Amino acid sequence: MTQLLVIGLTLLWLIGSSWVSDAQAVADREKLLSDPGIYGTFAVFALDEEWGKQEPSVRIARLAALKGVVEQHREHVAIDLYLLRGLSDQADLLFRIHAVELRDTQEFLLDLSSSQFGKHLKTAGMMHGLTKKPNYAPGFPEQIKADLKTVSEPGEKPYAIVIPIQKSAEWWGLGQEKRAAMMQEHTEATLPYLKTVKRKLYHSSGLDDLDFITYFETSKLEDFHSLVLSLENVKEFQYTRQFGNPTLLGTVQSLDEIIETLAQ
Amino acid sequence: MTQLLVIGLTLLWLIGSSWVSDAQAVADREKLLSDPGIYGTFAVFALDEEWGKQEPSVRIARLAALKGVVEQHREHVAIDLYLLRGLSDQADLLFRIHAVELRDTQEFLLDLSSSQFGKHLKTAGMMHGLTKKPNYAPGFPEQIKADLKTVSEPGEKPYAIVIPIQKSAEWWGLGQEKRAAMMQEHTEATLPYLKTVKRKLYHSSGLDDLDFITYFETSKLEDFHSLVLSLENVKEFQYTRQFGNPTLLGTVQSLDEIIETLAQ
Amino acid sequence: MTQLLVIGLTLLWLIGSSWVSDAQAVADREKLLSDPGIYGTFAVFALDEEWGKQEPSVRIARLAALKGVVEQHREHVAIDLYLLRGLSDQADLLFRIHAVELRDTQEFLLDLSSSQFGKHLKTAGMMHGLTKKPNYAPGFPEQIKADLKTVSEPGEKPYAIVIPIQKSAEWWGLGQEKRAAMMQEHTEATLPYLKTVKRKLYHSSGLDDLDFITYFETSKLEDFHSLVLSLENVKEFQYTRQFGNPTLLGTVQSLDEIIETLAQ
Amino acid sequence: MTQLLVIGLTLLWLIGSSWVSDAQAVADREKLLSDPGIYGTFAVFALDEEWGKQEPSVRIARLAALKGVVEQHREHVAIDLYLLRGLSDQADLLFRIHAVELRDTQEFLLDLSSSQFGKHLKTAGMMHGLTKKPNYAPGFPEQIKADLKTVSEPGEKPYAIVIPIQKSAEWWGLGQEKRAAMMQEHTEATLPYLKTVKRKLYHSSGLDDLDFITYFETSKLEDFHSLVLSLENVKEFQYTRQFGNPTLLGTVQSLDEIIETLAQ
Amino acid sequence: MTQLLVIGLTLLWLIGSSWVSDAQAVADREKLLSDPGIYGTFAVFALDEEWGKQEPSVRIARLAALKGVVEQHREHVAIDLYLLRGLSDQADLLFRIHAVELRDTQEFLLDLSSSQFGKHLKTAGMMHGLTKKPNYAPGFPEQIKADLKTVSEPGEKPYAIVIPIQKSAEWWGLGQEKRAAMMQEHTEATLPYLKTVKRKLYHSSGLDDLDFITYFETSKLEDFHSLVLSLENVKEFQYTRQFGNPTLLGTVQSLDEIIETLAQ
Repeated sequence: MTQLLVIGLTLLWLIGSSWVSDAQAVADREKLLSDPGIYGTFAVFALDEEWGKQEPSVRIARLAALKGVVEQHREHVAIDLYLLRGLSDQADLLFRIHAVELRDTQEFLLDLSSSQFGKHLKTAGMMHGLTKKPNYAPGFPEQIKADLKTVSEPGEKPYAIVIPIQKSAEWWGLGQEKRAAMMQEHTEATLPYLKTVKRKLYHSSGLDDLDFITYFETSKLEDFHSLVLSLENVKEFQYTRQFGNPTLLGTVQSLDEIIETLAQ
Repeated sequence: MTQLLVIGLTLLWLIGSSWVSDAQAVADREKLLSDPGIYGTFAVFALDEEWGKQEPSVRIARLAALKGVVEQHREHVAIDLYLLRGLSDQADLLFRIHAVELRDTQEFLLDLSSSQFGKHLKTAGMMHGLTKKPNYAPGFPEQIKADLKTVSEPGEKPYAIVIPIQKSAEWWGLGQEKRAAMMQEHTEATLPYLKTVKRKLYHSSGLDDLDFITYFETSKLEDFHSLVLSLENVKEFQYTRQFGNPTLLGTVQSLDEIIETLAQ
Repeated sequence: MTQLLVIGLTLLWLIGSSWVSDAQAVADREKLLSDPGIYGTFAVFALDEEWGKQEPSVRIARLAALKGVVEQHREHVAIDLYLLRGLSDQADLLFRIHAVELRDTQEFLLDLSSSQFGKHLKTAGMMHGLTKKPNYAPGFPEQIKADLKTVSEPGEKPYAIVIPIQKSAEWWGLGQEKRAAMMQEHTEATLPYLKTVKRKLYHSSGLDDLDFITYFETSKLEDFHSLVLSLENVKEFQYTRQFGNPTLLGTVQSLDEIIETLAQ
Repeated sequence: MTQLLVIGLTLLWLIGSSWVSDAQAVADREKLLSDPGIYGTFAVFALDEEWGKQEPSVRIARLAALKGVVEQHREHVAIDLYLLRGLSDQADLLFRIHAVELRDTQEFLLDLSSSQFGKHLKTAGMMHGLTKKPNYAPGFPEQIKADLKTVSEPGEKPYAIVIPIQKSAEWWGLGQEKRAAMMQEHTEATLPYLKTVKRKLYHSSGLDDLDFITYFETSKLEDFHSLVLSLENVKEFQYTRQFGNPTLLGTVQSLDEIIETLAQ
Repeated sequence: MTQLLVIGLTLLWLIGSSWVSDAQAVADREKLLSDPGIYGTFAVFALDEEWGKQEPSVRIARLAALKGVVEQHREHVAIDLYLLRGLSDQADLLFRIHAVELRDTQEFLLDLSSSQFGKHLKTAGMMHGLTKKPNYAPGFPEQIKADLKTVSEPGEKPYAIVIPIQKSAEWWGLGQEKRAAMMQEHTEATLPYLKTVKRKLYHSSGLDDLDFITYFETSKLEDFHSLVLSLENVKEFQYTRQFGNPTLLGTVQSLDEIIETLAQ
């Protein structure tokens, strides 16, 4: 009982404490999350079979190592965490990392993997993409451009979905003009969902075996489902070779929430 | 011998006991199983190699943990259990979970996986779908609409089959009218089996790598086989990219029956 | 030396002994193997890495458990055994089980997996099919119908081959008449091999991810190879999406022969 | 030091010794390697993780078991060995076995797997094919027939390559005449390489999930590469569904060379 | 503390020391990296789960074994190392090996795998290709030939990308002339990136399940991404069956840098 109390207090202290000044980190984070020319990495991990067999005190010590590594690298890279366990197959955690250089991301992941916590992680997937200025939007009618400025409703968006996409070779052979026309239809289909489904696009060609990584946040999964149905109905969808496979569905979590969940 | 007796009595007590009031749970369960806008999750698990090597008394203690987690969450989510072992490859158990929010399902599965029983579970698959009002039925001829009201024969339906489905991009490109015509033919093919094969449909697009999850219950597997053959013969089947893969075949079991089987 | 003698004698006794009356079992077995409306299950297993490391006496004790489970269920289900080890990849044993209800098959496989022997088995595949009266044969010319009555030559047929088959969606869309014409050509191609290659067909649609399971026995593998070549040359083969994958090749073995081989 | 000396001497003795008379075996071997109607099996194995952790003396004892099993079966089957480790993914050893009956091959592989050495082997692949008289060559022009009699240059051919092949359903539907014309073009493309690349063909349809196994030996890998390029350029290649996957590349080794390499 | 100091000093000494004369090795290395008729092997490895659990002193001893094997073979083969961990899924290290004979590469990899370090390596992939004089360039217009002589900018190129490629059967059936025209368009698309993206091509047909291995080095990943996008837009891309799968992305590292990273 006393031991459990000590563990509980340690966990509370662990969740509360923070090793770096947050002000600077937050400023950089905003730029990393909104600028073009930033590399986004989706690192998917499964916890090994040993994790569940550890004593609570051991688990908390290892989660402190996770916290340490994340805090230490937050000065250079923006790190978001998602809990996949209970919603996706065979993966438990997703790290989304934004960095100016992929080497910075690699350094974070190397430190993570050599940490006491990292020894329990098995890499289940790794995707990289680049943020870029919109390709086709500049040529869209003014009304669509205006509609695209719709800001998503404030409030928490607890669900995150990642859908990797590869276009067919035929798509790339269509030429810019035909692709732009289809992308306009695609964009129109998304307009009704701008308020409740937040989106972000990463360009992947050459960085991994994808063309795009699409990232979504929502509090209304049914709206997200309707959005995907709408996208399946437009002509551009015929030129999609891979859509998902895997689709990653998880919940957005703070580092402290993840620690609390995994400590159990 | 005395030890076996103790274990047997513990098992009997375990199967008999129940920690929550059933009345409220049952009421919610009816709504969760019949309303549109409900999320259905199919969580497929394999028992690890350690399970078979545990002492009976240890196994029963862990099955008590399973019972505890299921009973605790039954207030918020509807949980059905199926035994796949002996009928499907490499998976042993299927949980079908209905919830108003997928977060509630995630919480149940997180508690399950961190329980003493969950440490023996390896996730073999995870599928999510949404229940919706019929898409095409409102436009069908009156006779079909009337036929569709056929209630399945009472009595136990021991077999359950889950078939995940992904339509081709071509299907989505056909337009609503052509799809409705084909779905009418599809529906007509199912009418002769309404009495002996119970069906339920979940819409998945965007929630995982499927478009639909089809769920069946029957006591006459031969009728179910004939139903599938009929569906393979209609035009709509040409637009199916994935049908099964995996097809999950199991037997419907109560929590107590599962516990009894796994205790052996 | 004395220990080896004891083990040898135990093995001899194990192979000789039998716990159930054989007469009734054999009678049922004939019906299960020839009637339509019977479910055939092909359960494929690999032995785990621990098996080879067990002491001979331990192995024999576990093989006694195998014998016990098989004998106990032979009253309800017909069980055939095949040795795949040394001829197929990554699987060692094949059980072919015929039953009136798949629940009976599940019960046998559950008892097998919870037995001391079953703890060493990893499921590598599971296929189910239904025996049915011939679909197309009633419309064939009289000569073919007569030829089809050819009985296969007596004598042992040591090799067994299982080829799972899935037809293309196009096949099902052809309509019954066109399919019947092609099946006649298919059947004619098989006539020269009726004497040396024994065949049995199972219908799978909906029970797993197949349409058919084809089962063959022969003492002349070269004839079987020529038969498959002939079938590849007929038009119906163009409508086959999956042929094999896996093809299972093994030798027909009695329970005692299997026990003797695995005891080594 | 003394222990190492003992191990070294044991290894030398092991490599030198031979338990069966070679004369008869060699005679049979010639027939098995040149006659039609012979079954060729390609059994691919990976060494388990335990192998590298064994003491040298233990490894040598187990390699003696390998030698024993191979020598014992060489009277009935022709056994060739290849070292894949360092050239192919995830497989270390390839056994090519020629036998009059696949049962003899199975018996060898059963004895191998139950030997002290076999406990370290994991089956990574198993392919079977039948040697047959040439299908199309009898109808070729006399010049090609004459050219085909070119004997490959004497001298060691250290590299061996195995390429499994499956033809498309379309190929089999072409009819014998069209296939023969294309095979003539295919054969002409191979003529420049007859001197430096030795070839052998096995027919697989029905025995596994292939139509052919093609086996090559060469001392000039660049010539072999050019030969494959030439074959990719002929029309018949358009009708190939599987070419490789896996392509196995290794070095031809005597049993003693394999033992010496694996003893380290 | 003292122990850590000793380990640190050992690591420093390990990184500094070198067992062979570098001058000769470097000379051969230049030829191996620029001549046609050289075999390039890409050997991809994952570290096993034991690696992370070793004491630092044990790890350093095993990394000394790695250094020893690499230094010993550098006289015969050119060895480049890349760190994939943190950027690619499920693989940690990539060795690129150039040799006059693949047997020399095999000997290096055999020594590596039987070393104390190699016991921790699991082979995740193995690709072989041959360097050849340009196929199509001799027929290109003079301007392109001149442009192709552009030397890449000096300075470190920290990122390396390996993309395996398989062309469709249709590509090989086009004939040399049509292929040359398309390859000219392909080449033109690459010209703007010659300064910032270094490229090297390996011909694989027959040596593994690929036609080409393309290797890239760059300090500007965004330029590399744009290059791949340009290549996806030319007609030749329509004849590509496999592009990546896997795409390997890593950082170029010296042996000492790898040792330093893995020692942590």
